[in-house]
Amino acid sequence: MKKIYNPSKEEWSTILQRPTQTVADIESTVLTVFKKIQSEGDIAVSTYTEKFDQVKLDEILVSTEEIEAAKQAVSTELKEAIQLAKANIETFHNAQKTDKVFIETSNGVACWQEKRPIQKVGLYIPGGTAPLFSTILMLAVPANLAGCNEIVLCSPPDRNGNINPAILYTAHLCGVTKICKVGGIQAIGAMTFGTETIPQVYKIFGPGNQYVTVAKQLATKFGVAIDMPAGPSELLVVADDSANAAFVASDLLSQAEHGKDSQVILVSTSKDLIDKVETEIDIQLAELPRKDIATIAISNSKLIYVENDQTALEMINEYGPEHFIICMKNEDFYVDRIANAGSVFIGNYTPESAGDYASGTNHTLPTNGYAKQYSGVNLDSFMKSMTFQKISDIGIQNIGNAIELMAEAEGLQAHKNAVTLRLESLK
Amino acid sequence: MKKIYNPSKEEWSTILQRPTQTVADIESTVLTVFKKIQSEGDIAVSTYTEKFDQVKLDEILVSTEEIEAAKQAVSTELKEAIQLAKANIETFHNAQKTDKVFIETSNGVACWQEKRPIQKVGLYIPGGTAPLFSTILMLAVPANLAGCNEIVLCSPPDRNGNINPAILYTAHLCGVTKICKVGGIQAIGAMTFGTETIPQVYKIFGPGNQYVTVAKQLATKFGVAIDMPAGPSELLVVADDSANAAFVASDLLSQAEHGKDSQVILVSTSKDLIDKVETEIDIQLAELPRKDIATIAISNSKLIYVENDQTALEMINEYGPEHFIICMKNEDFYVDRIANAGSVFIGNYTPESAGDYASGTNHTLPTNGYAKQYSGVNLDSFMKSMTFQKISDIGIQNIGNAIELMAEAEGLQAHKNAVTLRLESLK
Repeated sequence: MKKIYNPSKEEWSTILQRPTQTVADIESTVLTVFKKIQSEGDIAVSTYTEKFDQVKLDEILVSTEEIEAAKQAVSTELKEAIQLAKANIETFHNAQKTDKVFIETSNGVACWQEKRPIQKVGLYIPGGTAPLFSTILMLAVPANLAGCNEIVLCSPPDRNGNINPAILYTAHLCGVTKICKVGGIQAIGAMTFGTETIPQVYKIFGPGNQYVTVAKQLATKFGVAIDMPAGPSELLVVADDSANAAFVASDLLSQAEHGKDSQVILVSTSKDLIDKVETEIDIQLAELPRKDIATIAISNSKLIYVENDQTALEMINEYGPEHFIICMKNEDFYVDRIANAGSVFIGNYTPESAGDYASGTNHTLPTNGYAKQYSGVNLDSFMKSMTFQKISDIGIQNIGNAIELMAEAEGLQAHKNAVTLRLESLK
Repeated sequence: MKKIYNPSKEEWSTILQRPTQTVADIESTVLTVFKKIQSEGDIAVSTYTEKFDQVKLDEILVSTEEIEAAKQAVSTELKEAIQLAKANIETFHNAQKTDKVFIETSNGVACWQEKRPIQKVGLYIPGGTAPLFSTILMLAVPANLAGCNEIVLCSPPDRNGNINPAILYTAHLCGVTKICKVGGIQAIGAMTFGTETIPQVYKIFGPGNQYVTVAKQLATKFGVAIDMPAGPSELLVVADDSANAAFVASDLLSQAEHGKDSQVILVSTSKDLIDKVETEIDIQLAELPRKDIATIAISNSKLIYVENDQTALEMINEYGPEHFIICMKNEDFYVDRIANAGSVFIGNYTPESAGDYASGTNHTLPTNGYAKQYSGVNLDSFMKSMTFQKISDIGIQNIGNAIELMAEAEGLQAHKNAVTLRLESLK
């Protein structure tokens, strides 16, 4: 761990620098896979599944029988935990529903805004050692609340051609309409272009390795939207002597175990707390099953001492953390003034893992400083806002002349004519 | 114009095909300009302005004197028209403000969502023959309402080094914080990387030619967000015998005059209306100053007859028009069921130009079928939604066990530990 005391403002950008990723090499691989899927559909998908996932599948779609078997395979206590998390996520995202915004801007000029669902969405859930069923909750629950008709989920099969039961159980519980055994670049390609079996979607959500990330970026060139650009996960904790050093250490470690490139930062106005957290990290780290990963991430982590809250706040806003934990006596100072953060966790009993799983907030959040301009996934991520206007004969008489003048000044005579004709007809 | 009667569903995608654009050649030019700006800042900006805009500037920033002179130069009646439009746009976008969403998802688990402004935004306003001051209203008004601190506007200077007074007047009126005389790729590059004079921004908005469009796309690779991917403007009108053929023709022409590649489509359940509109277009087209452009766009336009509303609706939803005018007796059928459109104009007195200028809705809208998944620019485009959670000792006891179970099932022991430590401390 690097302890840094009172860094000057000029040093901030260097201290807070994130690991950079190179994507140039991956792009050509992605384009090759995309072209093949575009021209050959399911056959190309199966070929790549055999190549990358080492399994030859008879069926890409998960069957009803497989889902039934998964329901049996998941323990009752895990099912109950998933149901509790689902209920909280549903409650919070349901509260985000907005009414139609209706207003008469001038007499006779009615304007309104309505949100309507994106009809077809795709969710990508990575495979690997751990089944990330929690991400299904975070994506499929709001997709369903939004009213998306088609919710396609793609996840890579294991070498026996199966998907983890917890994933199948959760996907079914959350109303996913099609579950496809396909991963990596080929999954993103299939949802971008559509195949005989896998529907083309309008927007793709979900995490993934660097291949999936680059594939999602490139998919946007082919008319698909994505949730947000992705980078390694990150956590910044601001804490003072009111914080519990063991709790803070446990939060930093829970971030560090995600990956070797995870970003872990503690900012503190207490040198004493920094020392205590450092000691606690050493104690807790030794016990972790993923300690090899966490050790590397922690060795790159920063413990930064600053003299006052204002400096801390400015530094945090410059960084724009994905996850931001506040364990400070004067927590309101930070809550009120934080300008750039994905999700904020307040107080000693609010670990990041609460938001990762079950508090109700979404865990798909902007990394890499994107909290400065991107929202985390929320209900609106699955909808688009449309506007409507209805102008009466009186309305066009009220605003018609202004339109004529502005259209003329912009050199757009036909725009003016469209109004003039209507005004003439009312004379 | 192409008249098409009762096309089969298989033909729809061909009939509704949009012109494709190739960007590969432009990308390398953009990257060269970007690299130069990144390393040389203002000097590179000035070099490119001299090269592309044929003018050597002493100052990139517009001065207070220039703004004062612009206020004098714009006619009183145009100023009043702009003020009326601004008031309507302000009213409609102000109505889009949302309250904090606060809910207790489980006892002791408080979650909330708040929208906070994107601190720095950049607006690009093209130059050329017509000064697009209306686009400033559409971007700077909501940016200001959202609370963005820094609102940078870039627009290319003419050969005398000036920006049109209507643009300067409107920018000043709408609270733009910096107006920069820089256009094209170099403007997008400057706002992406920042120079000595031009601030780096977090999100770039606004229209432009294909160079600007590609530059905006590439800017996203360098950490900047953009409003939306851009394509040629488009209008689809659905009309029956209740429509006024002259009005419909004037709307189609107001779209057609935008550019040779503008998309103009009429869908009708009345062959008679189609014929009348065709005649009206010929009459009105002859009188237009931009008839050369409009004639080409109109020659590619489609007048499509379909037998019933359901077929019309399905076709329109497959197309996903940027602008959608409904002049039908049963307008509610379409208003209620339209799933994919940027902005909707209802009835005989609601021309597209109303929304382009002064009704209050935003005219920065998704083209190219992106209405399927993108919102038009609205108040939220200038904000990001952040989530907060505060869990009490009781709260963590209510959801802690579920988190532990889920974290363990996902193989993330440190995530579990962060909860276990807290639960232990409360025993």
